[in-house]
Amino acid sequence: MRVRGGDLRSIRLADDGWSVNIIDQRRLPFELVIAHLRSLADAEAAIRDMAVRGAPLIGATAAYGLCLAAREDADESAIAHAHAILLATRPTAVNLKWALDRVQAAMRAAPLGARAEVGYVCAEFICDEDVAANRAIGAHGLPLLRAAFEKRRGERLNVLTHCNAGWLATVDRGTALSPVYLAHEQGLPVHVWVDETRPRNQGAALTAWELGQAGVPHTVIVDNAGGHLMQRGLVDAVVVGSDRTTARGDVCNKIGTYLKALAARDCGVPFYVAVPSSSIDFTIHDGLTEIPIEERDAEEVTGIVGQAPDGSEVRVRLVPAGTAAANFAFDVTPAALVTALITERGVCPASADGLRALYPERA
Amino acid sequence: MRVRGGDLRSIRLADDGWSVNIIDQRRLPFELVIAHLRSLADAEAAIRDMAVRGAPLIGATAAYGLCLAAREDADESAIAHAHAILLATRPTAVNLKWALDRVQAAMRAAPLGARAEVGYVCAEFICDEDVAANRAIGAHGLPLLRAAFEKRRGERLNVLTHCNAGWLATVDRGTALSPVYLAHEQGLPVHVWVDETRPRNQGAALTAWELGQAGVPHTVIVDNAGGHLMQRGLVDAVVVGSDRTTARGDVCNKIGTYLKALAARDCGVPFYVAVPSSSIDFTIHDGLTEIPIEERDAEEVTGIVGQAPDGSEVRVRLVPAGTAAANFAFDVTPAALVTALITERGVCPASADGLRALYPERA
Repeated sequence: MRVRGGDLRSIRLADDGWSVNIIDQRRLPFELVIAHLRSLADAEAAIRDMAVRGAPLIGATAAYGLCLAAREDADESAIAHAHAILLATRPTAVNLKWALDRVQAAMRAAPLGARAEVGYVCAEFICDEDVAANRAIGAHGLPLLRAAFEKRRGERLNVLTHCNAGWLATVDRGTALSPVYLAHEQGLPVHVWVDETRPRNQGAALTAWELGQAGVPHTVIVDNAGGHLMQRGLVDAVVVGSDRTTARGDVCNKIGTYLKALAARDCGVPFYVAVPSSSIDFTIHDGLTEIPIEERDAEEVTGIVGQAPDGSEVRVRLVPAGTAAANFAFDVTPAALVTALITERGVCPASADGLRALYPERA
Repeated sequence: MRVRGGDLRSIRLADDGWSVNIIDQRRLPFELVIAHLRSLADAEAAIRDMAVRGAPLIGATAAYGLCLAAREDADESAIAHAHAILLATRPTAVNLKWALDRVQAAMRAAPLGARAEVGYVCAEFICDEDVAANRAIGAHGLPLLRAAFEKRRGERLNVLTHCNAGWLATVDRGTALSPVYLAHEQGLPVHVWVDETRPRNQGAALTAWELGQAGVPHTVIVDNAGGHLMQRGLVDAVVVGSDRTTARGDVCNKIGTYLKALAARDCGVPFYVAVPSSSIDFTIHDGLTEIPIEERDAEEVTGIVGQAPDGSEVRVRLVPAGTAAANFAFDVTPAALVTALITERGVCPASADGLRALYPERA
C-alpha cells in the first residue's frame, strides 16, 4: 500500500537478500518503525510479542523464520526444531502451521546445501500468493458491498469492521479491508466504522492508521457501539477477517466478533467474513470445541499504552491496584451467523457444502 | 457501604446542614476524593461533568441542586429556572426529571420562606427511598441468582455486569449489584465478571473498586469478552441497571448492554435488569424511537485517563492524530431480550402487562 508516498508491504526481504524487514506494529499509530529479523529467535519474538500479528502475516513471518533458521543449520532435525519453536508462538491462527508445513516440505525435498534458498523461494511465493488472494477477495467482495449500498440507498456505504484485517494483517491489501479499498478506489463513497478492539486496540491503532494513510473516510468507535449503530440503520455491512475458519464455516476471530455477528443477525445487516484459504482449517468442524483460544497476559486488560500530551508513549493502569483480569484473545462465531464467506475463489455460504464447492481438493 | 472501615454514601448532606458532599467519581479508582456542592452551579457541573453519574444518583444530586438554588432564591420562577438548568445536564436518564419534578412540586406547595427547607426534606426522602428501593431489589433479585447458581451447579455463582450499577450509581447499595452484595453477605460463592465499559471505563474504574472494597471476588474483562464467556458456560446470569425503562419494558442502559443481551439470549443465560421505579418512564413505550441517546465528546473514545508508572494520572491518546470518533453513551435493549425486570416491588416480565401488574397506579 502507499504510505507517505512510497509503496510498503508489511513484510519483505531486505536488500541483503536474506534478512527480513517488518513493521513493528506495536509502535503504531505513533511511529512507523521498521524492524529487522536476522535469526530464528528474531522471528519467534516478532510473532510471540506481536510486532507482527494478523493470521496471514503471522504465516508469512514464520515462513521467513524457518529460512533464517535454515541459513544457520539446514539439517532436517534443526528445521523440525525451528518449525516447533515457531509453531508454539501463537496457538489460534492456522496460517502459522499452514505456512510452516509448506516451507518445511519444500526444504525437505531439496538437498542440504539448497534448503535455505528453496525456503526463501517458497516464503516469497507465500507472500505473493497472499497478495494475489487478497486482491481476489477484494474483487469478489466488492459486488456484495455495492449491493448493500444500493439496498439502503444512503449517502455513504457504511462498513463496520472489527480488529485489523487490513494490509497490516497480511502481506498487502488486507482481507476484510480489501473490498473496502477497492470500493474506495472505484469511487464508491465508502465509510468505515472502526471498532477500537480492546484490549490491544488494533482497530484504533492499526485500522484507523492504514485507512487514514489510504484516505478512506472512517470513524473510530468503542467496541460497545456497533449494536446501537446497526439498530439505527447506520451499518450497511459488517466485514471481518478470520484467524481460523473450520470446514463447516465456524469463524474464529478477534474477541468480540461474535457479539457483532449477533447484532448483525438481529438487525438484518449482512455479516461477511473474508477468508483466504490459508486460514481455513479443513481438518476440524466445530469451532467452539476444536479451536484453542489463546489466553494472554492480564496486563493487556488492566492497562493500555497511549501517547501522553508530551508525545511520549506511556502505559497507564486502568483498574484498582491488584485487580484480577481475564484476557481471551479470540472468540468463535458459529457459521449460522455468517451471511457468506469471501474467499479468493469466490463467495460461498458458511457451510461444509459451500466450502466444499469452492475447495473440492481440500474438503 | 463500608469503605476503609467507615460507612459511606455516594451523596449526603454535609455537617453544615445545607451543602452537599459527593464522591468525585472521576478520580476513582485512583483516589477517593470528596467534593462539596455549595450552589446550583456546583450541582449542575457535578452532573454534567460526571463527577456523579448513574441514573439514581443523578436524580438525588439534582434534587439537592434545586435545594441549593432555592436557598438563594425561592421564587417560583427561580426554581423553574434551576429546574431547567439541571434537567439540561444529561438527556437520557429519566430519574433526573422524576426527582426534579418531585422536589419542585413540594417546594411550590410550601410558602416562600419554607421552600428551601421543604426541598431538603424532599431530597433527603428521595435518597432514603432510593436506598430502601435498592435493598428491596436485592431481596427480590437474590432468589434469581440462587436459582441460576443451582441450575448450573458450578463451583461459583458467576454474574456478569456492564458499566456500574452499584452503590456508586445510586445513593447506596446499588441496583444491579444489590442482589450480588446480598448473595455475598449470605455466603454464596458469588464472582462477578466486570465489563470494563469503554469509553469511560465505569466497570474497570468504579465497579471493580466497589466490589474490591466489599471483598466480592471479581475479574475485569474487556467489553468484547462477555459473549465468549457465555458461550463457554462461564456466566450464570447477567444483571445490569437501566437509565430509562419504558412502559413496555424496553431498557436503555450504557452503550454495549444490547450486545450482552443478544449473547445471553443466544447462549440461554438469564438477562436481568434491576430497575427502581424511579427509572421507569411510563409515558413512553418504544425505547428505540422515544428515548434521546446522549452523544458525548469524541475525546472519550480517542483517549483515556489512567495512572502512569510514577503514580500520576495522565490522559493518553489511543488513535492517530486527527482521527474522527463517535461516542454514543447508551443503547436500547428491546424488552424481548430481557428475561425479567427486578424492581423494588418484585420481579416481573419486561412487558406492559408485567409492569402494569406491579405499578397499577402509574401504568
